[in-house]
Amino acid sequence: MRLEADPNAERVMAVSGERGTRGRSRRRARASRGGDGHTAGITQPLLRMPVYEVATAEQVEAIHEVSLRILEEAGIAFYDDESLAILRSAGADVGDDSVVRFDRDLVESHLEWCPAEFVHVARNPDRSVVIGGDHMVFAPVAGPPYVDDFETGRREATYDDLVTFIKLTQATPYLHSQGTEIVVPNDIPFHERGLDIVYAHFKHGDKPTMGHYPIGMTAADSVAMARIVFGEDFVADHHVLHATINVSSPRRLDDRMLGALKVYARANQIVMLTPFILAGAMGPAAILGTVAQANAEALAGIVFAQMVRRGTPCVYGPFLAVVDLQSGSPVFGAAESIHAQYLAGAMARRYGLPFRAAGSYVSGKRPDSQSGIEAALSMFPSLLTRPNFVLHAAGWMENGLTTSYEKFALDLEMLGIFHRYAAGISWADDEWALESVLREVPPGGHHLGTDHTMERFRDAFHRPQLFDHTSYETWSAAGARSAEDRAATAWRELLDSYVAPPLDEATDEALRDYMERRRGEIDPEEFQ
Amino acid sequence: MRLEADPNAERVMAVSGERGTRGRSRRRARASRGGDGHTAGITQPLLRMPVYEVATAEQVEAIHEVSLRILEEAGIAFYDDESLAILRSAGADVGDDSVVRFDRDLVESHLEWCPAEFVHVARNPDRSVVIGGDHMVFAPVAGPPYVDDFETGRREATYDDLVTFIKLTQATPYLHSQGTEIVVPNDIPFHERGLDIVYAHFKHGDKPTMGHYPIGMTAADSVAMARIVFGEDFVADHHVLHATINVSSPRRLDDRMLGALKVYARANQIVMLTPFILAGAMGPAAILGTVAQANAEALAGIVFAQMVRRGTPCVYGPFLAVVDLQSGSPVFGAAESIHAQYLAGAMARRYGLPFRAAGSYVSGKRPDSQSGIEAALSMFPSLLTRPNFVLHAAGWMENGLTTSYEKFALDLEMLGIFHRYAAGISWADDEWALESVLREVPPGGHHLGTDHTMERFRDAFHRPQLFDHTSYETWSAAGARSAEDRAATAWRELLDSYVAPPLDEATDEALRDYMERRRGEIDPEEFQ
Repeated sequence: MRLEADPNAERVMAVSGERGTRGRSRRRARASRGGDGHTAGITQPLLRMPVYEVATAEQVEAIHEVSLRILEEAGIAFYDDESLAILRSAGADVGDDSVVRFDRDLVESHLEWCPAEFVHVARNPDRSVVIGGDHMVFAPVAGPPYVDDFETGRREATYDDLVTFIKLTQATPYLHSQGTEIVVPNDIPFHERGLDIVYAHFKHGDKPTMGHYPIGMTAADSVAMARIVFGEDFVADHHVLHATINVSSPRRLDDRMLGALKVYARANQIVMLTPFILAGAMGPAAILGTVAQANAEALAGIVFAQMVRRGTPCVYGPFLAVVDLQSGSPVFGAAESIHAQYLAGAMARRYGLPFRAAGSYVSGKRPDSQSGIEAALSMFPSLLTRPNFVLHAAGWMENGLTTSYEKFALDLEMLGIFHRYAAGISWADDEWALESVLREVPPGGHHLGTDHTMERFRDAFHRPQLFDHTSYETWSAAGARSAEDRAATAWRELLDSYVAPPLDEATDEALRDYMERRRGEIDPEEFQ
Repeated sequence: MRLEADPNAERVMAVSGERGTRGRSRRRARASRGGDGHTAGITQPLLRMPVYEVATAEQVEAIHEVSLRILEEAGIAFYDDESLAILRSAGADVGDDSVVRFDRDLVESHLEWCPAEFVHVARNPDRSVVIGGDHMVFAPVAGPPYVDDFETGRREATYDDLVTFIKLTQATPYLHSQGTEIVVPNDIPFHERGLDIVYAHFKHGDKPTMGHYPIGMTAADSVAMARIVFGEDFVADHHVLHATINVSSPRRLDDRMLGALKVYARANQIVMLTPFILAGAMGPAAILGTVAQANAEALAGIVFAQMVRRGTPCVYGPFLAVVDLQSGSPVFGAAESIHAQYLAGAMARRYGLPFRAAGSYVSGKRPDSQSGIEAALSMFPSLLTRPNFVLHAAGWMENGLTTSYEKFALDLEMLGIFHRYAAGISWADDEWALESVLREVPPGGHHLGTDHTMERFRDAFHRPQLFDHTSYETWSAAGARSAEDRAATAWRELLDSYVAPPLDEATDEALRDYMERRRGEIDPEEFQ
């Protein structure tokens, strides 16, 4: 993969210095503080292909209007007293049943404060990323309790697995955020896990990390540890963590998620609002209704984040798929999910918000053909929507319950193709190869040896590493290995290429001291 | 899969009765004769999603202009004396080296005669299809000498395999043309194969068939057999066969392909011009040059077809992929191929011609994850280009050298998803599910039992058949079968569902008489 030479550096500097403007609405938005030369070396990909628009402006407004009706008439439940107080004092209509109704002026006025793009600063400033605009960030899967590899099979994941996946994420050029709980470290008591997850990310990687945020207390530990790494003043002015705040659809934000949201927002960290909807279960068995509901839920959370702290960097992040209506099982890679994805992206653009798009979601239980097709049909359409952030871009298997080592490698192969795809079509003069086409190569000849080809043969086309393009005979002689089998080699080779990023001794020790102290303090009851 | 109730019937009648107009250019084109009530039952899919435009009108014109330079300055070799005479008398500049140069007026004036859409009539009139407009036709792979199945492995294909694949094509709702040589019947002497291939299609299927056309003589046998089936007068006025005419890129049409083209065009049958270019080998290692060269080659063939017979129904059909420039191997599912595909589609729309888009191409040697990803990345982007005809939509494996029974079933599964995808996003009132979203379902509730869901649970979402969406436990208890393994069951079940379409005794006997007579007459030397 030939990455563009620092295509983003200039842009990042511009973002750091300017007040952001939220796309289509052209209203001035609050500046997002982040980056100040710390981002000069960024190599994240830019999407240089146009957005695929499937809805008219009127249709987008129709979704917007139905969403406002949901917010005005039906409302969203906030199960947290402090949150309700914040909402009430900001002018929302809070019912006795904790259901909060928002009028459209309240929504519009708070959306004004959202930055259109911002920088997620990495421990290694060369690896900081921009979230927004035409910038893309791919992050690994988050949350699976199980892990699977070709040799051992499916089992409960451990801390060692988590560290291994952080190293793989650090080593590949195709993931730009380390994400969070790539697998659950089941061998650590659940109430202490957050500390170990955050430490593992800072210790073994230096790309942007999300922290850990199942409840407010854990989010606060993430922020505290980030302050140890970056310094307290720096964290106050920069975004160094990024939480996924799940809406428990339909129309509900619980105290855990609200707790985490408040902590991150107050600390000036990134908050991604993710209504999680399988249409037919948490939303209606209809795409328009599902997108409108998800939109209302995302807006409610984003508006609330602005009430907590004006200018909180927010990502518009609905997770939309469908269920098999006859069995209730989730279905990934479905046509209807692609349709929903297109519309959700259009809504994000409507509001000038960074968009989280679908990752390599599959229902498959093995990294087989089903998983390959589902992953491609889940994630390729994301590239058509201007995906600013893609969680679950690698490793997701079995409805998100398992992180597969082999699928991780296969997804990286696909992400490599997507990087080249996103780089767009070059219209440079030498792309016409006029001399070769018009004069040098005769009818029936070939271009393999032309000067034009020789000058470009190393990088004119992306070269896959794991996929096999040899002849049947060569492939057979090499053992007739399936892609899954080759992937089992590929991730080990990637792991061998891992280089530990330096972490100064004092910081490491301070992190470990913090963890040791907190292990004795955390009350497991907090998680009940 | 819920297919729309006859969405095309009205449209087909309109096409039959009207003079076609080639899209963007808005010039009047010659009427295409085809369909006259024989197409009332058509159930082929319509593409109800917008085209994805990646090039500006100026960029499309730039490709057009470079193509005209190739045609005017470099020219295209036609290795056939009669073709050269036709070209010369039509005003082309024919060189002593058989290289023909076309000036732009000659190109433009002959493109005027191409119908924008036309009907490919099937033996069963309910299965006739429209080629052009928003209509899509999916056909199986064509040409592999090998066949592969999960149990037996890879081997030389036989006539029995061909018949089995014709039956599978007949039985599935997701293929609308029977294609041609789905596998090579290696057990029949090569010079007689064409007869058996054409007979097998008419005998075992009643969808539209392409005939067989490696040389002019075989194409003539296809036409003769079609006349036996449809009647001589009917064939004169209707399109019942469809040839792929490969340009031997770069810039060369040989006597075999020209022979077949002349026979089909003179008989008023469909001619699809297919420059076959792996960029870096038969075209430059650059996408713009490759697309411009392919465009020039396709235009040359289409213009020639109009010289042979004004109004010949033509499909604009470039086959574009890339090579690994370090090994020379073909690479399918590549980012650059997707870019090329988008531009080729834009050129077809520029000329108002039906477009042939990429099928389920893979380099994989097994129906594994690589093949799944490559197939999805080859064919899903086709849906963004307005694909009027997709050859190789099912069964392609190993760079097109093998037809895989299991991949055939897996591709059909993907085509099922694509059918639903193509049906588009419904903006009907009940897609909002307003009553459920606003009032019926409380915060944290679910939509599984609402009236709205109950009314739609059978067909709100497409239901995959082969892909597994059960839990890990259920999947394990059922044998933990890979998708490839389940596909081995799926194609056998599809075969069991095959119902032989009636073919009247007299026609069958006449076809067999014709074959018997011709077997004694065909000189194998004709193929040298």
